[in-house]
Amino acid sequence: MLQFGKIAVIGAGNTAYTLCKLLKSKGIEPFCVFVRNPEKAEKVRQDLGVEVVSDYENVLKTDLAIIAVNDDAISEVATHLTDYKGLAVHTSGTKPAELLNRTMRFGVFYPLQTMSKEREISFDEIPLLIYANSPDDVEMLSKFASQFSKKVVFCDDEQRKAIHLAAVFVSNFTNVMLGIGDKLLKDNGLSLDVMRPLVQEMIKKSFEISPKDALTGPARRNDFSTIGEHEKMLDNYPDELAIYMILTDYIIENYKNNEKL
Amino acid sequence: MLQFGKIAVIGAGNTAYTLCKLLKSKGIEPFCVFVRNPEKAEKVRQDLGVEVVSDYENVLKTDLAIIAVNDDAISEVATHLTDYKGLAVHTSGTKPAELLNRTMRFGVFYPLQTMSKEREISFDEIPLLIYANSPDDVEMLSKFASQFSKKVVFCDDEQRKAIHLAAVFVSNFTNVMLGIGDKLLKDNGLSLDVMRPLVQEMIKKSFEISPKDALTGPARRNDFSTIGEHEKMLDNYPDELAIYMILTDYIIENYKNNEKL
Repeated sequence: MLQFGKIAVIGAGNTAYTLCKLLKSKGIEPFCVFVRNPEKAEKVRQDLGVEVVSDYENVLKTDLAIIAVNDDAISEVATHLTDYKGLAVHTSGTKPAELLNRTMRFGVFYPLQTMSKEREISFDEIPLLIYANSPDDVEMLSKFASQFSKKVVFCDDEQRKAIHLAAVFVSNFTNVMLGIGDKLLKDNGLSLDVMRPLVQEMIKKSFEISPKDALTGPARRNDFSTIGEHEKMLDNYPDELAIYMILTDYIIENYKNNEKL
Repeated sequence: MLQFGKIAVIGAGNTAYTLCKLLKSKGIEPFCVFVRNPEKAEKVRQDLGVEVVSDYENVLKTDLAIIAVNDDAISEVATHLTDYKGLAVHTSGTKPAELLNRTMRFGVFYPLQTMSKEREISFDEIPLLIYANSPDDVEMLSKFASQFSKKVVFCDDEQRKAIHLAAVFVSNFTNVMLGIGDKLLKDNGLSLDVMRPLVQEMIKKSFEISPKDALTGPARRNDFSTIGEHEKMLDNYPDELAIYMILTDYIIENYKNNEKL
């Protein structure tokens, strides 16, 4: 079912690692992985057991180049691909596809997931947001992506950027809330682990009935006496207090027309 | 295994509903449920099929009274229980046990979970935080709680308050982040559903390796160009922009000593 003959992966970060593992998990050996830095190149070779190159000669021989580098480095990589005949895609949630318009065929292949080098994740359910500048390449990329995930979504730049921004709230900022909880509990000799069932049920409920309908808690009930006590408890945590206050105000202002729980 | 003969539940809110269902699920019929408001009383009777009373006479005949009312109403309920011979517990995360000290035997029975009338939740894994003012009652309450959950935790007022405050961050405020994501996606013709695998993996990772180590994203990498773009995209969302900025600053300030991802 492989739609692309030879595949190059460019980069040595979390996304590049995850994509290489993903390809290999489907029996697809990357033709080469481009890594500029020699030390990192050696590490990638050892970690992933792939062919690592540090010039673009081999990359130019491939049919699909997945540019999995930091957003700021995409343009520089593109300057080396002006003669590329294959399809060049970047993996950025925020950068426009046009960043690669020096190549004839370009697009985006953005896996909507948080990735770390050391974690194995199942791609089955992970949305792969794709874009290409020609209908033929959209079809090709869509077939390619479908090998890895059941959720291949065609997205233009604007939609992908909106998804990326929303992801910062639902993933990064949600993580910060867990981090603050962790800190407050540790300072009281307790462990975040006690929160796991609560967090899981809240997430489940939010996706099932919508976050707005799932919200409970003192701000939601306008319970100012508890809010006051919490603010007093955060006296020695000025940064966390500021966050508590802005989010409490947000709930009070934005949820007032919902039926009171 | 029932340690208490007759049980009264006081209240008609989410917690009272959930506790009644919980008791019944273990074959324990509440002796009575006290509901002051006649309309609500009728509804509780119909919804739960329990004996509903609106005076304290029957409550005084029980061995355990679970006061599952709003925090502000606990004191008022306590004034009716001065002659109570059983153990009176409230279900508040923030109020001190001493609020019930007009009764001889008092304590706390606080399920650490978000509860709605219409949802069935499995109590097995839910931490039940208990307290009582005598060692005998601690033991009794602990045995009682163990029927419902594997995680019965003895907590004093201070610890319970810290847990409650942490729960606001990890549950209510996390919910707000999902709500903002939902709003941004809807405004771009997209659905929050696309975020489910991302959120689930981030939560899993945070509990496995700690939230701080699990964090990724533009603020974590000090990627000011993406942050700037996000802030521009939030131009028409002043409240959400303020939240974006305070949380981004929090990450930049508090995570700078972690190894850069």
